[in-house]
Amino acid sequence: MIAYRNLRVALLGAGSVGAQVATLLTEHHDELASRVGAGLDLIGIAVRDVDAPRTAPIDPALFTTDAMGLIESADIVIELMGGIEPARSYILHALNSGADVVTGNKALLAAHGPELQAAAEQVGAQVYYEAAVAGAIPIIRPLRDSLAGDRVKRILGIVNGTTNFILDKMDVEGDTFENALAVATELGYAEADPTADIEGYDAAQKAAILARLAFHTDVPVEAVHREGITQITAAQVAQAQKAGYVVKLLAICERITDPSSGIDGVSARVYPALISRQHPLAAVHGGKNAVFVEAEAAGDLMFYGAGAGGIETASAVLGDVVSAARRHVAGGPGVAETTHANLTILPIDSVSTRYQITLEVSDAPGVLARIASLFSEHGVSVETVQQSIASVESGATRPDALATGTSESSGTATLVIVTHVASERALSRTVADIADQQVVVRVESVLRVEGA
Amino acid sequence: MIAYRNLRVALLGAGSVGAQVATLLTEHHDELASRVGAGLDLIGIAVRDVDAPRTAPIDPALFTTDAMGLIESADIVIELMGGIEPARSYILHALNSGADVVTGNKALLAAHGPELQAAAEQVGAQVYYEAAVAGAIPIIRPLRDSLAGDRVKRILGIVNGTTNFILDKMDVEGDTFENALAVATELGYAEADPTADIEGYDAAQKAAILARLAFHTDVPVEAVHREGITQITAAQVAQAQKAGYVVKLLAICERITDPSSGIDGVSARVYPALISRQHPLAAVHGGKNAVFVEAEAAGDLMFYGAGAGGIETASAVLGDVVSAARRHVAGGPGVAETTHANLTILPIDSVSTRYQITLEVSDAPGVLARIASLFSEHGVSVETVQQSIASVESGATRPDALATGTSESSGTATLVIVTHVASERALSRTVADIADQQVVVRVESVLRVEGA
Repeated sequence: MIAYRNLRVALLGAGSVGAQVATLLTEHHDELASRVGAGLDLIGIAVRDVDAPRTAPIDPALFTTDAMGLIESADIVIELMGGIEPARSYILHALNSGADVVTGNKALLAAHGPELQAAAEQVGAQVYYEAAVAGAIPIIRPLRDSLAGDRVKRILGIVNGTTNFILDKMDVEGDTFENALAVATELGYAEADPTADIEGYDAAQKAAILARLAFHTDVPVEAVHREGITQITAAQVAQAQKAGYVVKLLAICERITDPSSGIDGVSARVYPALISRQHPLAAVHGGKNAVFVEAEAAGDLMFYGAGAGGIETASAVLGDVVSAARRHVAGGPGVAETTHANLTILPIDSVSTRYQITLEVSDAPGVLARIASLFSEHGVSVETVQQSIASVESGATRPDALATGTSESSGTATLVIVTHVASERALSRTVADIADQQVVVRVESVLRVEGA
Repeated sequence: MIAYRNLRVALLGAGSVGAQVATLLTEHHDELASRVGAGLDLIGIAVRDVDAPRTAPIDPALFTTDAMGLIESADIVIELMGGIEPARSYILHALNSGADVVTGNKALLAAHGPELQAAAEQVGAQVYYEAAVAGAIPIIRPLRDSLAGDRVKRILGIVNGTTNFILDKMDVEGDTFENALAVATELGYAEADPTADIEGYDAAQKAAILARLAFHTDVPVEAVHREGITQITAAQVAQAQKAGYVVKLLAICERITDPSSGIDGVSARVYPALISRQHPLAAVHGGKNAVFVEAEAAGDLMFYGAGAGGIETASAVLGDVVSAARRHVAGGPGVAETTHANLTILPIDSVSTRYQITLEVSDAPGVLARIASLFSEHGVSVETVQQSIASVESGATRPDALATGTSESSGTATLVIVTHVASERALSRTVADIADQQVVVRVESVLRVEGA
């Protein structure tokens, strides 16, 4: 099935994302090969200092300081150095050498995106940059391809994890900005110099990239209106909460018409804003990112996930590498759709999950102990039990009656049992045994509990 | 810039999605051409009855009953007829005639996906089907391309809008299943025969498609374990709510290991399950869809939006048509990245949004009237005003004091004003004027309100 020659992949930079990319390319080599239709060989990693200490276990023979030489022998160049230079020169050199480029460099794309795209177009190469906006979240490809037949009206993005962590902490814990920032720094959410994040520079770069893609219009990062979150007070956040809002730093890209001149155009802006607690973006907590897209035909869409992190961002980089590689192999999505894995399809009996079982039982001493022992016999671990008396007229609950086994009522009670993860097989045997018990009037419901 | 010959697009079916696709292809012809690098000409629409009444304004000359003839003269064939036959034969004929195919036919893909993919691969054509799962939400492309370098562990999908509408109504309003279904039918969320939705057949088809894509494994729809929502009672939903859960019909695709045999495989299943109210899927209300993907490197991702609807689904179809067309033109994403629109970038002054203004004012009669008149003079419409006394020791609020203008306190009060949509220019002039008033101690904060 793998008929194409192996592709040569060069990596520029070995920071937290780069190291993860190198590890995944090596450890998942065969799996990636079967998805691409060709092996992806990591031929070298360009770094400034070959002997610098690394945390990830990377073959030291891969490191080189000769970035230009490495680039020239590659089919695909992954740039994860950050900053404008020498990243820009390296990427231009890669494109001119006929390589496709994958980059996560938002600063460079915001400042020189059009130049890089023009260089790529001239030689028929591609620049991929899914990792540059909102980390692991696929947003570039949906905007470029999935919505290519639609018209984007507005994008509201939470695209900076540091500021979202800070504002979420202020909202949830009533913290001041200063305290929340201190915690963010301590936990590694904020860098030693947090200016780029808290003053909105990082979000503005992402807004420029998103606006360009959504509106087919060059948007220089200097044209993005930018306000940071340093002036947001605990009082403002509390006031917002009282009024049903939450404060979020939003990157907004919008088709607007100037009310005075009537000129139709594009607005790209970053500022802290209030958003209704009913809005899907309000539920984006901690360091997470989300991009909410309002399109003419598609309506409202939201893309949610991890906006940063070495391994998470590496996923986006590798997705782009596979796309670039498939283009080399077949000029299309390659073997994306083959079922090379053909894993066994297991029946429902093989599934393990959590369960909620609701039983109507005699309200008599010893019932809970009897039921509990049946769970235990089948190896199903119980997480919680709640009990209420179903048959008494008042409808009042007596959560402790069965648990203590002291009830002498002749009525019935409802038991709601939630289990830890158990196998479907063990659970169904347990439920069958329970149903057979004389003290059990009926099994009212068995529902699975998912998402944990 | 448009150097390539126009591409010939054939449409099979003129139902609610098909009619919207035809309209968008015609009305957005020039815009689509600039995105593709070639015109997309709708050359015909195959229907069973040319003279059937249509709601959409489509040129009657486009209709034909000769589907096979139409297919043979097309570069791209869009199949939106639904059902297995004759859709399957038409698609195979299109592929064998060298056309790329775009389809939203989940039943066909679930039953014959591997056959269609094999036929496409043999002739080097492509089958696109973003519209087949979760309507407008881009999920196929992210799974196939964005996550191509990652390993999917589990997918939890709310992929059927009808059942989500019903379960949401039961949850929010305490409705019975029967009542909620009746309302869903009345509002057009459920079909006259709702079996395919409420018994989980529709979700099972989507689960088969998602599992195949996520795990590179053929998953026949018969192998998907399926339970519907007809047995879900109001009592269960209330019980779930009390315990911090919500009931959702989930399509679950998961890599699992059978606990008895140790066999590593795939599980695809559909059933109503409890999910924590803290989980992002719990916030998916009404007829919306969402797909939650847990990947090894990327972590948790969620894709949210409209799962059905003619115009919404047409957006997904057109995205696929553009992708297919770009492949014809350039063997790649074509002119996706050009900035052919180059719209004017408008400054922050051109933006219109809502605002929350917090003022510290003298707690004296007539203050509110004075402030209100300033808003009115600048044409800024006020939505709500809330007032609390800031300077009194007790900290108690007196929401009506200023509104009635009867206060004779010499302290200060806080006014929180939320406006309707206003222009940034008008708002900033209003705020400047307010700041100049003697009765205004200070403008505490001006925040924009977004997302409405």
